[in-house]
Amino acid sequence: MSLENISCQKSFGGWHKRYRHSSKVLGCDMVFAVYLPPQAEQGVKLPVLYWLSGLTCTDENFMQKAGAQRLAAELGLIIVAPDTSPRGDQVPGDPDNAWDFGKGAGFYVNATQQPWAQHYRMHDYVVDELPALIEAHFPASEQRSISGHSMGGHGALVCALRNPGRYRSVSAFSPISNPMDCPWGEKALSRYLGEDRARWREWDASVLLAETPSGQCPALLVDQGDRDDFLDNQLKPHALEQAARKGGHSLTLRLQPGYDHSYFFIASFIDEHLRHHAVALGRV
Amino acid sequence: MSLENISCQKSFGGWHKRYRHSSKVLGCDMVFAVYLPPQAEQGVKLPVLYWLSGLTCTDENFMQKAGAQRLAAELGLIIVAPDTSPRGDQVPGDPDNAWDFGKGAGFYVNATQQPWAQHYRMHDYVVDELPALIEAHFPASEQRSISGHSMGGHGALVCALRNPGRYRSVSAFSPISNPMDCPWGEKALSRYLGEDRARWREWDASVLLAETPSGQCPALLVDQGDRDDFLDNQLKPHALEQAARKGGHSLTLRLQPGYDHSYFFIASFIDEHLRHHAVALGRV
Repeated sequence: MSLENISCQKSFGGWHKRYRHSSKVLGCDMVFAVYLPPQAEQGVKLPVLYWLSGLTCTDENFMQKAGAQRLAAELGLIIVAPDTSPRGDQVPGDPDNAWDFGKGAGFYVNATQQPWAQHYRMHDYVVDELPALIEAHFPASEQRSISGHSMGGHGALVCALRNPGRYRSVSAFSPISNPMDCPWGEKALSRYLGEDRARWREWDASVLLAETPSGQCPALLVDQGDRDDFLDNQLKPHALEQAARKGGHSLTLRLQPGYDHSYFFIASFIDEHLRHHAVALGRV
Repeated sequence: MSLENISCQKSFGGWHKRYRHSSKVLGCDMVFAVYLPPQAEQGVKLPVLYWLSGLTCTDENFMQKAGAQRLAAELGLIIVAPDTSPRGDQVPGDPDNAWDFGKGAGFYVNATQQPWAQHYRMHDYVVDELPALIEAHFPASEQRSISGHSMGGHGALVCALRNPGRYRSVSAFSPISNPMDCPWGEKALSRYLGEDRARWREWDASVLLAETPSGQCPALLVDQGDRDDFLDNQLKPHALEQAARKGGHSLTLRLQPGYDHSYFFIASFIDEHLRHHAVALGRV
């Protein structure tokens, strides 16, 4: 698998690089970003934090707005930010150019319904294809953690819970915690997976967490702003809290007073998330 | 003068707020952003760092991408980011929608030529009208510092050098250091100020610095990436270095290896600039 470097910018002594590649899983060209801390030039393999972005985002939002590079450079963490859906004119299933479905809104599932089933396989892309690329082309170890925001918070939780042992740690900002029971999730899952709600359960973090055997879940850190316009209608973090209790899992859910759904919120707490992951990844 | 609050987002325990107001100096409505650190709610007046952005920017770029709020919250600095030109359909003189002239490219001068003379008075807006607003409506002291990037780095240097004593400190990232002698500057100054180059001299940081009496210039910090595509053709920091030597001023000009002209560069060094200003403003 070859990578085409499309930009390279120095950042906090390391490098922010963007790459285009042909994705076999998604059947289209994809762009991702990687932050390589200064330690990446020292001949050692470094752990990788995967960041999954929210609705409408690309690889760029997190890298430009979260301010994560400063501490990642200090801790020696590689950060990888994929796009949020398959892309390109040949990818069907985006009839109404909606901002909450289709392009920019892959929901990190493997679609089973037409016309999405061929390209919308973001789970497999994020969990398998992309890490294989990263570990082949960069000084990346197989120590992985995962985090994300909103739709990407859902994605991070689901990727970690579906794949025990694959991630050392998981965290989320403002995740869509119970997509089976909110408008964004119902719209996406009913199309990508079909109307049978039983099949949605394996893509819902709250359902998965409740069913995960105690001790098989990495420590969970979730931050949620209490002035987030989507809190009650779309995000529903208390479903996650109930699921953690039911499953006997440790969940740190912090309701942060005054914060909204934006990157100003993410930037305010990203350092604490990076430290959460760095501990699990043996960097502190 | 009244301010209309158009957004309010919590950030590092403080608040990122945007305001619209009617500018008498510019003859149009303007939007600016202010970052109020947590200390702003403690009944004390805080010093203000004014940030001037570069070509094509608005108040948003710096606040979203520089990552300055983290340390500003710690140091207790207010940051104010104005727009880069007058705005609105009633503002003439933007015939070709160029990205390097007119809207988004006010160059922080007071224009003397038609059709720009009525509205393009960004120097007076930044130096006088905006601070008066800030000091009237926020817990802001009259201790001011100024910084900026590219066109805004030029703006910061020129505002400080034209107004001795008004700013405690000045810094710049990748400033247009000698606008009389580069394509961006020649295009803007010839239109805003007319073809008589003698009148450009009072808007050129290198000319002003060379002519400033020794001891009347605050300590200057300038960072410049050595992989900046605009370095040799547009920015010319060595003109500033020569001027500092000629005028007997202390200039810290750092050529940062590997960095380009982007906000990834600014974010990498913004903390050092904030500390430079915080020392002058008595916050450390």
